[in-house]
Amino acid sequence: MTSVTVIGLGLMGKALAGAFVRAGHLTTVWNRTAGKKVEGARHAADVAAAVAASPLVVVCVVNNDAVRQVVEQAGSLEGKVLVNLTNGTPSQAREVAALVAELGGGYVDGGIMAVPQMIAGPGALVLYSGSEKAFTEHRATLEVLAEARFMGEDAGAAALYDLALLSGMYGMFGGMYHAFAMVRAAGGDVREFAPMLTAWLSAMMAGAPEAAGEVVSGDYATEVSSLAMNQVAFPNFVEASEELGLRPDVLLPIQRLIDRAVAAGHGGDSLTRLVEMIKE
Amino acid sequence: MTSVTVIGLGLMGKALAGAFVRAGHLTTVWNRTAGKKVEGARHAADVAAAVAASPLVVVCVVNNDAVRQVVEQAGSLEGKVLVNLTNGTPSQAREVAALVAELGGGYVDGGIMAVPQMIAGPGALVLYSGSEKAFTEHRATLEVLAEARFMGEDAGAAALYDLALLSGMYGMFGGMYHAFAMVRAAGGDVREFAPMLTAWLSAMMAGAPEAAGEVVSGDYATEVSSLAMNQVAFPNFVEASEELGLRPDVLLPIQRLIDRAVAAGHGGDSLTRLVEMIKE
Repeated sequence: MTSVTVIGLGLMGKALAGAFVRAGHLTTVWNRTAGKKVEGARHAADVAAAVAASPLVVVCVVNNDAVRQVVEQAGSLEGKVLVNLTNGTPSQAREVAALVAELGGGYVDGGIMAVPQMIAGPGALVLYSGSEKAFTEHRATLEVLAEARFMGEDAGAAALYDLALLSGMYGMFGGMYHAFAMVRAAGGDVREFAPMLTAWLSAMMAGAPEAAGEVVSGDYATEVSSLAMNQVAFPNFVEASEELGLRPDVLLPIQRLIDRAVAAGHGGDSLTRLVEMIKE
Repeated sequence: MTSVTVIGLGLMGKALAGAFVRAGHLTTVWNRTAGKKVEGARHAADVAAAVAASPLVVVCVVNNDAVRQVVEQAGSLEGKVLVNLTNGTPSQAREVAALVAELGGGYVDGGIMAVPQMIAGPGALVLYSGSEKAFTEHRATLEVLAEARFMGEDAGAAALYDLALLSGMYGMFGGMYHAFAMVRAAGGDVREFAPMLTAWLSAMMAGAPEAAGEVVSGDYATEVSSLAMNQVAFPNFVEASEELGLRPDVLLPIQRLIDRAVAAGHGGDSLTRLVEMIKE
């Protein structure tokens, strides 16, 4: 069974190391500040010792600047595979990949689609990209943490899909929070409203494959719900929110995108046309 | 079987009238501009004749100013129930309710959670509020159109929940469109990405009942994903979007809410705390 090193013992790093220990992997850990412990793991004295201990080195630290510091302290990465599960952008991932390659290591980037409590449990997913050879070599070990999905040889791909999925989530949460705020401000019961909201959002989400088809084809013509119709109704959201003492901030960028799309002559197109308006 | 009048023959009004005709109701229609036809319906010469024709009068016009014009042209509404399915705010609904009451009519407001193509089909839902007596009297007829849900005697309730649900939808669509734009700009396949996105959003939506509980209790303490952790990661979205030539507009209000919440000392709280930051 592969020995594993985990560098970074924040909430997520601890969850990762704990999962490897419980799965029976000889696990070595290191953290920048001392005092963080993982039961059943060996605590290395420095980065070089931590990296030397295992062929597979998982790094989960605060950001990619910290990853670069770790890599620079590691010395040679000859014969090692570094799996970087730190939050970051595609560009940052590619920079770290180049640095790791210079030092002779294999590089896999990863985006964790889970909170620490979900690691090694059902529903957790980690997206990977970079060296397919290195990923395949360690896939079984990485699957201890979560379902592992390989997104391609571009080291930036995992970060891209991670950020795209999280963008979708933040947008959805923003809408849900605004909806909760409206119901509460009007004296309604948010707990009774929540299942109504999720049922509605699930129903609306069913249009995603069709929307994706529109984006790919560039054909946004619709007979269902045009941008012009949405534009007419939009001031009601702003007015009703303000009457309830709420800031319509979450909705305003959508309104501006709709206004710009209609002004550009796309009033007869579907809402999905807004994907085009997000370009700079 | 109750006779029904439908006033307003836009896309939605036509769908409503068509559904009543197909269900076997004697259906009378009127539209502000002539020339719009509904097969199987009687076309009234003016509003007064249209209203006189049926005990149940469904109004679906461009906005509540247009509804008021219709009501003023109707003369007496004695013995009539007016069901207003026009888009509007809770305040507007209450104003129309008062006007209808003055003219002796029963008033039910409604919010249609469907596009015209969904009327009389599976999945369509209409929220109603106002006079429960009037709603109950005509419930069976209204159920021809869609599932009918009564939200309370406040005439504004249907509009409130309609706007709240749609706010949630616009937020979710904004997030989905941003995600699509990122994947496409990076050269990815949006059609392959769509099911991945909806699976992820569905998983994240599962936290809605817990979030609603936090809103009701006012206890946002978390050990899962704190606002401070989200704040650290957020610049990655902005940076990655800009590197792809995309405007992060949809995400910026969420970032501002997070920044304000952390600055107000709520860094240890969950994202759901943002519901509180939407207040003016």
